[in-house]
Amino acid sequence: MTCFLLTGAAGFIGSTLTDRLLADGHQVIGIDNFSTGRQEFLTNALKNPAFTFVEGDLLNRDQLLKAMQLMPVDFVYHLAANADVRCGTENPRKDLEQNTIATFNVLDTMREVGVKNIAFSSTGSIYGEPDVVPTPENAPFPIQTSLYGASKLAGEGLIQAFAEGFGFSTWIFRFVSVLGERYTHGHIYDFCRRLQSNPTRLEVLGDGNQTKSYMYVQDCIDAMLLATAKTSNPVNIFNLGVDGTIQVRDSISVIINRMGVKPELVYGESTRGWIGDSPLIHLNCDKIREIGWVPRLTIPQGIIRTLDWLLNNQWVLKP
Amino acid sequence: MTCFLLTGAAGFIGSTLTDRLLADGHQVIGIDNFSTGRQEFLTNALKNPAFTFVEGDLLNRDQLLKAMQLMPVDFVYHLAANADVRCGTENPRKDLEQNTIATFNVLDTMREVGVKNIAFSSTGSIYGEPDVVPTPENAPFPIQTSLYGASKLAGEGLIQAFAEGFGFSTWIFRFVSVLGERYTHGHIYDFCRRLQSNPTRLEVLGDGNQTKSYMYVQDCIDAMLLATAKTSNPVNIFNLGVDGTIQVRDSISVIINRMGVKPELVYGESTRGWIGDSPLIHLNCDKIREIGWVPRLTIPQGIIRTLDWLLNNQWVLKP
Repeated sequence: MTCFLLTGAAGFIGSTLTDRLLADGHQVIGIDNFSTGRQEFLTNALKNPAFTFVEGDLLNRDQLLKAMQLMPVDFVYHLAANADVRCGTENPRKDLEQNTIATFNVLDTMREVGVKNIAFSSTGSIYGEPDVVPTPENAPFPIQTSLYGASKLAGEGLIQAFAEGFGFSTWIFRFVSVLGERYTHGHIYDFCRRLQSNPTRLEVLGDGNQTKSYMYVQDCIDAMLLATAKTSNPVNIFNLGVDGTIQVRDSISVIINRMGVKPELVYGESTRGWIGDSPLIHLNCDKIREIGWVPRLTIPQGIIRTLDWLLNNQWVLKP
Repeated sequence: MTCFLLTGAAGFIGSTLTDRLLADGHQVIGIDNFSTGRQEFLTNALKNPAFTFVEGDLLNRDQLLKAMQLMPVDFVYHLAANADVRCGTENPRKDLEQNTIATFNVLDTMREVGVKNIAFSSTGSIYGEPDVVPTPENAPFPIQTSLYGASKLAGEGLIQAFAEGFGFSTWIFRFVSVLGERYTHGHIYDFCRRLQSNPTRLEVLGDGNQTKSYMYVQDCIDAMLLATAKTSNPVNIFNLGVDGTIQVRDSISVIINRMGVKPELVYGESTRGWIGDSPLIHLNCDKIREIGWVPRLTIPQGIIRTLDWLLNNQWVLKP
């Protein structure tokens, strides 16, 4: 039995990982400030005596220290983040605080307490608009195009420096967008909500040709657990995504077919949905596949799974 | 006439650039908190009516805003930093605050005031222990090995995100170590001071085989002024260094010859002088050379120039 501490434990990926680790017989300490996490996602976990929840903010070192000292922690999954890549320019300080400074606080508290293993949810956005597509982990030194990407890059750098400076073992996962049960923000969420309120017309940011890659949340968790079990360098970096890509206009087709609606589709003219949006995120995931990971769902299957969950959980769609 | 705002204006490079810009007929606002800067370096600048000095800390947004509103600023040179790459593990928060958060504050204040041009002193340390040597700007995505490198990587990412998000024009300079008049910390400083106090014995961190590259401060300033004049992309990144390298043991030979001392040299066993020290920093500087930059001094010439200045300015060597 291992004791895991999860930041962002009430979030989409965090709560799903919490349930998985508890099912596997581990001890889990969860910390979340409910900025985007949902109490409802922890309903089952809270019934399990192996789960301890701390409501706390990573910008508050005392709360973090208290959580990490509840019992001897073996491994930290640092999943808490401001994940809204689109709003960076509205409040640039948010990414700095919630992602960069929060990550520093997690690392520095680990150092203080003596915890040395950490996995981190980074992002494919870190590659900006890459020259090499599909983009491998050792692509040319990227140029950041969003405050979100910049804040995750900063987090990666800090983790690597702690690995070198303090003997940490670290796993950095660069995700494509993740879909599935408990998905509460992003393209599919927005389209679903807007089509429910107006099934006759859908306005789309950008020209619809942006190419995206999505991964099913359980596949994502499989990959993280496999990588942490099978690799043990001071710094282990993995792209996580499926092989294919999908254009925004094709995602929309899957959604309107599943919802049985026939809206007028109104596209913008820009090749980007928003400032810093990459028209093409397609990661080379050979490295994680080489250690044996096989995703269960294709992108359209993941979209349908997500959509069905949203439609069956209307409370999530309420503002 | 252009109005420049320089952070770290009382520092080694900052004060030298201040003097150059004033000599070229520009207006300069300098800001410095004297954490490592020296009042003495601004003696001449302060006599010039085109120079305005503000004692202030970049972690204090009000002081920064006040300085940036003194007059319409065209261009910011953000040179202030915690430049002590060796002490990162003693106080990890210092690099985060002085380098990453301070850089964010400069950028966000520029956004507030409407200043859109910035040049930034980054570092060759950002390449960690690179696979490609000499290391070009588009080397494979590096792994950070020091908190200093990580904090500068974070600064670069922020600058790039502001370029994309807010239409900034940005210049990022990845320096090797800089030497010359007003040099106040680093290898040459340490060796000089210790040989003055004990000319019979010198202990050296590491085995002396670490390969370093140094650049003369006036060459560094030539390169920055040339690059900002000749390039105009949203993000312009340049390695700055000379072509050759020098091993630590050869630097020491140059120093003891110039000082006329014959110490017993006691080397360590490690290939690194300290945790995060790179045994080899050698940048590929073709890009800056292609726009016409030619350094004036070789590495040994730069070391001798530095040493002579230190020996003639004993006040700098006092603790």
